[in-house]
Amino acid sequence: MAGVQDSALAIAVSKAGGLGSLPCAMLSPEAMRKELEAIRSATDRPFNVNFFCHTTPEPDPAREKAWLAALSRYYEEYEIDPDAIPASLERAPFSAEAADVVEEFRPAVVSFHFGLPPAPLLARVKAAGAFVLGCATTVAEAQWLEARGADAVVAQGLEAGGHRGIFLSGDLTTQSGTFALLPQVASAVEIPVIAAGGIADASGVCAAIALGAAAVQVGTAYLLCPEATTSALHRAALKNAATRHTAVTNLISGRPARGIMNRLMREMGPINSAVPAFPRAARAIAPLRAKAEGRGDDGFSTLWCGQNASGCQEVPAAALTRMLAD
Amino acid sequence: MAGVQDSALAIAVSKAGGLGSLPCAMLSPEAMRKELEAIRSATDRPFNVNFFCHTTPEPDPAREKAWLAALSRYYEEYEIDPDAIPASLERAPFSAEAADVVEEFRPAVVSFHFGLPPAPLLARVKAAGAFVLGCATTVAEAQWLEARGADAVVAQGLEAGGHRGIFLSGDLTTQSGTFALLPQVASAVEIPVIAAGGIADASGVCAAIALGAAAVQVGTAYLLCPEATTSALHRAALKNAATRHTAVTNLISGRPARGIMNRLMREMGPINSAVPAFPRAARAIAPLRAKAEGRGDDGFSTLWCGQNASGCQEVPAAALTRMLAD
Repeated sequence: MAGVQDSALAIAVSKAGGLGSLPCAMLSPEAMRKELEAIRSATDRPFNVNFFCHTTPEPDPAREKAWLAALSRYYEEYEIDPDAIPASLERAPFSAEAADVVEEFRPAVVSFHFGLPPAPLLARVKAAGAFVLGCATTVAEAQWLEARGADAVVAQGLEAGGHRGIFLSGDLTTQSGTFALLPQVASAVEIPVIAAGGIADASGVCAAIALGAAAVQVGTAYLLCPEATTSALHRAALKNAATRHTAVTNLISGRPARGIMNRLMREMGPINSAVPAFPRAARAIAPLRAKAEGRGDDGFSTLWCGQNASGCQEVPAAALTRMLAD
Repeated sequence: MAGVQDSALAIAVSKAGGLGSLPCAMLSPEAMRKELEAIRSATDRPFNVNFFCHTTPEPDPAREKAWLAALSRYYEEYEIDPDAIPASLERAPFSAEAADVVEEFRPAVVSFHFGLPPAPLLARVKAAGAFVLGCATTVAEAQWLEARGADAVVAQGLEAGGHRGIFLSGDLTTQSGTFALLPQVASAVEIPVIAAGGIADASGVCAAIALGAAAVQVGTAYLLCPEATTSALHRAALKNAATRHTAVTNLISGRPARGIMNRLMREMGPINSAVPAFPRAARAIAPLRAKAEGRGDDGFSTLWCGQNASGCQEVPAAALTRMLAD
């Protein structure tokens, strides 16, 4: 959950008997080391380190310029010069430098989003002893991941918050709800299946196990925990059942991801075909978000959230983990 | 499941201990009587009678003409004169004549799609002793149905095949997967909740019960039963796991409904904002479907199917019902 957590949430979950996870897509190798040292010094329990493994697209100045023009009314409203927007922190794919960090810290589990890294990098992760998870949003993706060496697969239902793991297709009609995806993935692969999407409480865990899951991955429910770094605006949106209507949008990063509907999504999308390729789309929105958030307005904010936020509780992550496990 | 079943499937399911259902949206009162007499003469078990309760839209000749023009290349390909397309059998809303039939046959259960009928008609159904089901695709719809007298609510997840019951909004981003919708509806209403969408086998039933369902509604799994009237082309599509990719489309009727992707959906949609209002959109497609099907081509066919067709089996409906219940 890049952007809403760091090592503190991972530590709390792992200490409580869950598998805490550190999102690394937005961390430099130095920042990763710092976070991993924090985890190692806090607990001997296993934890997961998560990476994105997209291919960085070639720059496409014409497309990016057209997108800035499409957003011009917002830049005018917020008095932003679109020609002076700095490069933003881009989500980076798993790299040789990240593999160095994995070899240094030897986490029990390494998970990947958007497929798997190139074979030589994946081999380094496996040689470092990591149990490797891949994320599948279709049966075909699950079979692809199994064939290429994933040790388990996360079946990510359409209910899930944040980035869709979709990588074999760009067609969003291929995306299934957890109730349909999970049992079909469990039938199609031999490796264990971890259910994600819509799981908010212990009864959700029971239901996922009934549908063939060996384990569950829960994100949204942790967003209000004190250990999460969820922003105040994001927390406020999550607490309001009336406004936490979500949609899958590509406006924030260029790839489809589920978040709470904001002004930008209502007015421009939520899916807009003019958006620059992932992860370059983030740059155009960053200054709008910053200015709006400065006024207490979440109209351009990244408010990742799944379709079932009913499990969000302002309790320590350890308590939430125990509630899910019980 | 209008179009793919009549009394035969309802009889087989009710005799096996399930609650068989007769879809009436495409039946005249005379045809309803004939089907209901068939059920009554075959079994004393309870059954359900299902109606649509949309508001029939005013004619919009300009919109319909523009839509015919948008489809002109298909009419040329199939040598159809778009000015000579006859009126097609329209899906009709629940009416005073239908209430007469309900009073005559007094079915144990009456279910409605797209909200509830006007209060005086609903009162007649309840006075006839029917237990009334409404279909909800959001928490707000479930609360609306409960407040207006539904005795139970069907929580229809986005995985479900056929028409989405959505009626309080036209915004498809409000539509949730079963895993997210079901527990949130179960928490929000006092009346029993029936889960629909993605339930293909007994483990799906267990999962739905874990998430708060009092019962389940299963459609897709019955489509290959000998008692269903599913067409040969539809059966062939259902049997092919590689091609039974579904999408929610408004091309067939004007309202969003989930079916197997066909040529029309790929080329025109699957959601197209120029489609005439429900149910008038059906007329434009009917002659294309007829001509294409005459050539063994399902490119324009109505191939309703949910996202989990893994439970479809060519077994008698009684056997399937027992498998689901076990």
